[in-house]
Amino acid sequence: MLQQLNKEVLLKRKEALEQVIKRRFIYQPAFSLYGGVAGLYDYGPVGCAIKTNIEQYWREHFIIEEDLFEIAATILTPEPVLKASGHVDRFTDLLVCDSKTGTGYRADKIVTETLENRIAKEGDKLAADVKARYLLVIKDVDTFKEDKMKEIIAELQIKAPETGNDLTDPTPFNLMLPTIIGPSTKLPAYLRPETAQGMFLNFARLLEQNGGRVPFGAAQIGLGFRNEIAPRGGLLRCREFQMAEIEYFVDPNEKSTFKKFNKYINLEIPLLSRQLQADAKLHQPYKMGDAVKEGIINNETLAYFICRTYLYLVEIGINPINIRFRQHQADEMAHYSSDCWDAEIEMSSGWVECVGLADRSAYDLNAHSTATGQKLQAARKFKVPQPRQVIQIILDKQKIGKELKKDGMTLIKYVEALPDDEKQELSEYFQTHEEKVFNIDGKDLKLNRQLVKFEQKTMNVMEEKFIPHVIEPAFGIGRILQAIIEHSFNQRDDPQKTYFKFSPRVAPVKCSILSVVQNEEFDIVIQELTSSLKKLGISCKTDNAGVALGKKYARTDEIGIPFAITVDKETLTTQSITLREIETTKQVRVPIVEVPRLILELSNGLILWTDVLNKYPLFAAKEEDA
Amino acid sequence: MLQQLNKEVLLKRKEALEQVIKRRFIYQPAFSLYGGVAGLYDYGPVGCAIKTNIEQYWREHFIIEEDLFEIAATILTPEPVLKASGHVDRFTDLLVCDSKTGTGYRADKIVTETLENRIAKEGDKLAADVKARYLLVIKDVDTFKEDKMKEIIAELQIKAPETGNDLTDPTPFNLMLPTIIGPSTKLPAYLRPETAQGMFLNFARLLEQNGGRVPFGAAQIGLGFRNEIAPRGGLLRCREFQMAEIEYFVDPNEKSTFKKFNKYINLEIPLLSRQLQADAKLHQPYKMGDAVKEGIINNETLAYFICRTYLYLVEIGINPINIRFRQHQADEMAHYSSDCWDAEIEMSSGWVECVGLADRSAYDLNAHSTATGQKLQAARKFKVPQPRQVIQIILDKQKIGKELKKDGMTLIKYVEALPDDEKQELSEYFQTHEEKVFNIDGKDLKLNRQLVKFEQKTMNVMEEKFIPHVIEPAFGIGRILQAIIEHSFNQRDDPQKTYFKFSPRVAPVKCSILSVVQNEEFDIVIQELTSSLKKLGISCKTDNAGVALGKKYARTDEIGIPFAITVDKETLTTQSITLREIETTKQVRVPIVEVPRLILELSNGLILWTDVLNKYPLFAAKEEDA
Repeated sequence: MLQQLNKEVLLKRKEALEQVIKRRFIYQPAFSLYGGVAGLYDYGPVGCAIKTNIEQYWREHFIIEEDLFEIAATILTPEPVLKASGHVDRFTDLLVCDSKTGTGYRADKIVTETLENRIAKEGDKLAADVKARYLLVIKDVDTFKEDKMKEIIAELQIKAPETGNDLTDPTPFNLMLPTIIGPSTKLPAYLRPETAQGMFLNFARLLEQNGGRVPFGAAQIGLGFRNEIAPRGGLLRCREFQMAEIEYFVDPNEKSTFKKFNKYINLEIPLLSRQLQADAKLHQPYKMGDAVKEGIINNETLAYFICRTYLYLVEIGINPINIRFRQHQADEMAHYSSDCWDAEIEMSSGWVECVGLADRSAYDLNAHSTATGQKLQAARKFKVPQPRQVIQIILDKQKIGKELKKDGMTLIKYVEALPDDEKQELSEYFQTHEEKVFNIDGKDLKLNRQLVKFEQKTMNVMEEKFIPHVIEPAFGIGRILQAIIEHSFNQRDDPQKTYFKFSPRVAPVKCSILSVVQNEEFDIVIQELTSSLKKLGISCKTDNAGVALGKKYARTDEIGIPFAITVDKETLTTQSITLREIETTKQVRVPIVEVPRLILELSNGLILWTDVLNKYPLFAAKEEDA
Repeated sequence: MLQQLNKEVLLKRKEALEQVIKRRFIYQPAFSLYGGVAGLYDYGPVGCAIKTNIEQYWREHFIIEEDLFEIAATILTPEPVLKASGHVDRFTDLLVCDSKTGTGYRADKIVTETLENRIAKEGDKLAADVKARYLLVIKDVDTFKEDKMKEIIAELQIKAPETGNDLTDPTPFNLMLPTIIGPSTKLPAYLRPETAQGMFLNFARLLEQNGGRVPFGAAQIGLGFRNEIAPRGGLLRCREFQMAEIEYFVDPNEKSTFKKFNKYINLEIPLLSRQLQADAKLHQPYKMGDAVKEGIINNETLAYFICRTYLYLVEIGINPINIRFRQHQADEMAHYSSDCWDAEIEMSSGWVECVGLADRSAYDLNAHSTATGQKLQAARKFKVPQPRQVIQIILDKQKIGKELKKDGMTLIKYVEALPDDEKQELSEYFQTHEEKVFNIDGKDLKLNRQLVKFEQKTMNVMEEKFIPHVIEPAFGIGRILQAIIEHSFNQRDDPQKTYFKFSPRVAPVKCSILSVVQNEEFDIVIQELTSSLKKLGISCKTDNAGVALGKKYARTDEIGIPFAITVDKETLTTQSITLREIETTKQVRVPIVEVPRLILELSNGLILWTDVLNKYPLFAAKEEDA
């Protein structure tokens, strides 16, 4: 049965959860010994194992299931790449500084916080129109450009919060972390702000691996870096963060129909469309087939990945009731994007964007083509010849021959063999230029525009080139991990007894092996069991300390180990152990020989705890009193 | 049967291998579209999957087996951390530049190359004593400091290779990539040069997770960055590279004996000890128990990890004959290190260091303790009280009370409760200082040295504090991957038909699913099989193209898919397929229902191909002629 979670429930539990996060080192601020650095976190053993498991299941759910090409490109990225992608010029937040101390703030955040404080502080004393104005600014502030922001800061008298000093004019601050590669070349570079560019740059290589055909997808799991002005919210806004991204390349003519989407047309997913937002309404469930038919979601390919994302999130333990997909407003999307949806998850801090699903159109491949002069295209092959407008070049061969002598033929052959799009470019070029120089085999050969004519003609062709469009699902692993932790956290009747109800796939350790009392004979059994579990690659934790069994259960519950094996007196006579599940605390008696495979299948989701309850005799335990 | 590989065999195959690496995008230079950046490589789908599998098995072999605490610390590292660790001052290579063009070179490399070229070029014309001198320099050049390097460059007339210009004086060039964190604090930072520091900084948190007990180990898989002066050798010397490191914390009193080492005392491993190197001898196999007994390896803990490393390398497909462990020379080791061994693997470029195993003593914990004033210690608990020299503090309580009034008691209690090592420090402090100010609960309280005496006394104690020593196995994942690829690469009788004999665990894709001819009924079977394999998380690749079966086998062989399922006419009548293994190309007939689990168990190493051959009827294939 699903538990109804909402922000209030999550907030109530938050303090207890934070204690566990710290005490059991799930994650903690990095460099605490040195005073810490905002926005940097280290994952401890529990957090790291959950992260690995989320990633590994992402591989199964997306990469294996969709036959994606996983790559591992570099974090270090030379400047020209990020210049072409637009990051050098536009990947910025507006920065304002305290005019006296120099402390920096993110302009939109400081405006929001100041106005929220005023509303909270002045309460009913605040005039209704002023309050309405404040709320409107808060809603739109993250879309303000420099001038507008400056105007608002002046008009609303926003000051530095600690000192009350004036703020400097808002200036764009680039969020990329810079570095320099090499001792002598001193190549300016950045740490990648997203993993996506590595996949665009390898497009041609991957297309070749796919036999020249689209659609196909690239995938990458790795770190991104953003020099956030004001990191906050624990794992929610970090300067270094793990991402998992897919770039799914499609023929723009074919993205509306995606065969595999058929199986999900009746899947219901909560959507918060642009229209619902405009009407100030809540998200509501849509059948995905209808959402595409009604034009709410732009195309089936995008809708398919929304479905897959939803299923992934549910499978790894996010409460479905706390998931919604919010559509970007027109002014929120990048200009090249035709549709964009965020998977938002409700946490103690409200709804948090955890996955972005964008139709990036042909923007990125185009940008890198333009910057490098290398065509990043695929070919559309026809079964029967198709009529197409084709540009034809007619050269005055005689004059060219006269002018260039034997190089004339070289030039003629070269120009006639140009691909269609370059012929088109040449025709445009000659509209404003008198001549064009071609470097052919190291020789500069000049072509005068008087010697060439262009004609449009309809021809039957067997294929045509195009720049694929890209559907990009981008997952923030840290945020998803935070959501899993918040949604899985529970307290028993005694609120000190906390546990995580992780999906077994995601659980950091799959099972604990405990002894009911300290006993050397038990230890031998524990050792043998441990060894056979490890052989299957199952992570387990033994605890044969001389403390009460109830205490041992509490320890393993606290880090969400789903299954506990207990060795007791009966073990020695019947060669069986008891197996306990974390949420129900129910126990069954299982023959030792069957244990390793049972745990393996439970961990992989091949069988469920209910199957185990049906198969093995229940064991009446008194452990919880211990 | 093991194939005898050596540098010559590997070199012979290298050209064919490099073609495959490029054609099948195993890995390739990064940013080729933009002209490339030396020392940066992107892993394509095949390379990336192998990398993931190597890492995943590393987790099983080390983290799960040894109950290590895996963490994920940040790459961004503030400068003070790397100042304390010694990297800011000492993590350098000597750089020389062309005095006119400014091009930079690594001093040791340019000396080596110049002298090697002279030896090769002049051959017998070179005087014997000159040649001997050259060889000696080549052998020692990587240990030269600035002055010695300058002297050698002048003496041997080493010039810039491209221009013949003079070289500038050698200067240390720091190999860390710098960056700046934050818009206002502008914190100087570096990209970590190794993952180790993150584990040292989290020592106290991890010790707590282990109930305050040593030994325990931390582990981390992640990227390291080095701004190499002269990156080269493909994956062998990159500027961004994946590492897997263990920091195993031990009580220095106990590192000589390591219980689990017992099972490996008869394991034979090829060692190239310091002595063998001094005698100019080759490596030779030692029983590991003897190697420790004879003092060749410093302690059992270090020896245990050498054994585990050896077994790991063999298990993932490195040819055992091409593995040796080379001991560092005394002048090669860091000054704090008591013993250090490199796992070297023979590749086409010679013996390459792929894993470093160092006893780092207490150096790192000590360095961070000193820099931060936070004690990074563990406690040794005794079963029976032990006599220890203890420092006692005798305070003139009366005078302190008079001087500080009621704060006097606070100071007295505080000072008396200081841990032993701080009492010791205080006694040393008072040898040169008149007074010491303690900040207690926000209040500064002064203690004059006249009011305190120290006495050494023998007392029985139940525990004592110590700084753990660290055994560090550090794996270079890229180098290991390169070794696997080189050792696994093979050619059939037709050298165009290449394949990789990967261990199934490591293979990038576990099985291919092919049809003997294009046929819609076959396609349905292929789809069902694919879907049931994917449900088990098994990566597979289908190929129902209309080409000859032999060609399909060649394609999957080329990227080392160990098992191929073929759907043929008989499939439709007997519900069975043929299963082919890559190395033997033998085939058996297997019922479809048994296939998914069979592939899963083959992939995990739970069963071997020979088991399959014993169980299922051999199928006489004619495919290779196709």
